[in-house]
Amino acid sequence: MSKLAKMVPAAMILGCAGAMGADWQTLPLHAPAPADNPTTPAKVELGKMLFFDPRLSSTGTVSCFSCHNVMEGGDDHRPTSIGVHGQLGGRNAPTVWNAAFQSVQFWDGRAASLEAQAKGPIVNPIEMGMPKLDLAVDRIKRIPGYQPFFERAFGQGGQVTADTIAMSIAAYERTLITPNSPYDRFVQGDKQALDARQQRGMQAFADVGCASCHAGANFSGPPMPAGSGFFMKFPTYLDNPYVAQYHLLDDGGRAVQTGKAQDQNVWRVPTLRNLTYTAPYFHNGLVKSLPEAVKVMAATQLNKKLSDAQAADIAAFLNGLDGQFPEQAMPRLPPTPGDLLE
Amino acid sequence: MSKLAKMVPAAMILGCAGAMGADWQTLPLHAPAPADNPTTPAKVELGKMLFFDPRLSSTGTVSCFSCHNVMEGGDDHRPTSIGVHGQLGGRNAPTVWNAAFQSVQFWDGRAASLEAQAKGPIVNPIEMGMPKLDLAVDRIKRIPGYQPFFERAFGQGGQVTADTIAMSIAAYERTLITPNSPYDRFVQGDKQALDARQQRGMQAFADVGCASCHAGANFSGPPMPAGSGFFMKFPTYLDNPYVAQYHLLDDGGRAVQTGKAQDQNVWRVPTLRNLTYTAPYFHNGLVKSLPEAVKVMAATQLNKKLSDAQAADIAAFLNGLDGQFPEQAMPRLPPTPGDLLE
Repeated sequence: MSKLAKMVPAAMILGCAGAMGADWQTLPLHAPAPADNPTTPAKVELGKMLFFDPRLSSTGTVSCFSCHNVMEGGDDHRPTSIGVHGQLGGRNAPTVWNAAFQSVQFWDGRAASLEAQAKGPIVNPIEMGMPKLDLAVDRIKRIPGYQPFFERAFGQGGQVTADTIAMSIAAYERTLITPNSPYDRFVQGDKQALDARQQRGMQAFADVGCASCHAGANFSGPPMPAGSGFFMKFPTYLDNPYVAQYHLLDDGGRAVQTGKAQDQNVWRVPTLRNLTYTAPYFHNGLVKSLPEAVKVMAATQLNKKLSDAQAADIAAFLNGLDGQFPEQAMPRLPPTPGDLLE
Repeated sequence: MSKLAKMVPAAMILGCAGAMGADWQTLPLHAPAPADNPTTPAKVELGKMLFFDPRLSSTGTVSCFSCHNVMEGGDDHRPTSIGVHGQLGGRNAPTVWNAAFQSVQFWDGRAASLEAQAKGPIVNPIEMGMPKLDLAVDRIKRIPGYQPFFERAFGQGGQVTADTIAMSIAAYERTLITPNSPYDRFVQGDKQALDARQQRGMQAFADVGCASCHAGANFSGPPMPAGSGFFMKFPTYLDNPYVAQYHLLDDGGRAVQTGKAQDQNVWRVPTLRNLTYTAPYFHNGLVKSLPEAVKVMAATQLNKKLSDAQAADIAAFLNGLDGQFPEQAMPRLPPTPGDLLE
């Protein structure tokens, strides 16, 4: 039995549970970390510096921050991102906020951890454009001011390697959590936290079946063993105008990576938190408004045609998932000494 | 008598004074502001948001911060910067740190104020690439979350205009000051703040004549009335290998802007603070190391050939001008609602 085939019925069972009253969970204040990369303040500090450092890109102009703007929604407000040399990417930048709660990373879930993910864009020719990870490592090594930070994070003699760079960035990303949304406060007992319309939308979200896939604390699926993602075929139902209008079949999704027919148009279920900040929507960023995105999902995934009022109610509920963004101090990046410039 | 002709002798007189002991000044803790744009916390807060907001560029990917990295030396560590669509600029990004103490802005001094400067890159086709300033204003207007910040900064009904955007950014930039460098502490009486080599370099800096142009608290020239810059011809002396090696005559400097023969290869005298962070050097960013830059300047501006030891001493002194960078909180940028996206 294929992974997908196993999962679809599971989601349907969850969907039935949702219709009777979903299992509403609040966002944890801390993200789990793998045993071999515990989150420490020293790693987080170093990871924040590296997250903001454009020297990890071939041109020295593109950092993780460039497409994952943590001063905003953790993405870039574009349909698809722009990397080095003005090159246009093929998919919408997923938010880095609460990414720590996704069991796999990237739209197609091809990275099993934040650590694995962090290395990807650096060597993607249309993102940060480094020909090899070693060249990025070499760049960071040539910045003497980084060395004490690697030692604090990884012990005396702490080496600058692709792994320690990725582990630091992942540690920082595990702190990018937006708790205490109106939804979270509502679930915790503050019945004023969501207004009447949002509460209607919350019930509709469960009744219509959205909660069957967008389950759990991060609304990105039920808990899964680390590295095994919660995937869905999108679009599942094709008899609606949205499939053509928004080019939903153009990108093969997970199949592009795996080459397997069963993965055609299969995607990781993304979080629904902070959607106010992350328009435009979907893997191709072609849907601008949230009520429209809700309608598209209902039609393509649940074969339901929502009224404007229903879609607006659900969108209002989803806006109640906007969390509190932690205050952050800007990192100070150490300079590359002139005589060590390439 | 041309402006340049008036200024060269003045600089020479200063040069003689420098040889006997330059007028060493420390960096003020506050920058002067024009009467019609007093620096207020509300303007600074808004200006910081706008400084970091890539939506001021046509692609939504380039902000002031992109080339003026205030997490580092206020520039971008590149010979010349890269703007929208991967386009390469023609000149090295000047640091934004202490720019408030420069009497004119840009390498060629074509902007008389930080306010005037701030509007330039937004509509420069190879920088932020907006076809018109009005389009940038429209972008910001379409972000409802900005409105309260404009009202706090400019009063009830505070309008989003090109002027209020520029005034806010300028107000933020006036807070980008790096005081308390070892040099400043030395001048204030802490005789341990510069080591013996740096003190030797300081004397050489005066004796050789560097202080004749790089005078004042910001090492960018004597105080001038706002809007009238302190300019110098560079290179002045052509009988040295550097002119050809570093293509010093290729860019006409101020003449490109004014079209006047007397402005050929004339440039604003830039600050020497925080050079540790701002390699590579000069308007074309072709000189990587600071001792080499010192030699180039001595040869082209003072017709002096420095020994390696002298250049290293002066470079050590200049590294003593690295100041304290203030801690800054990251701004939170309000989202563009999806249905208001272009």
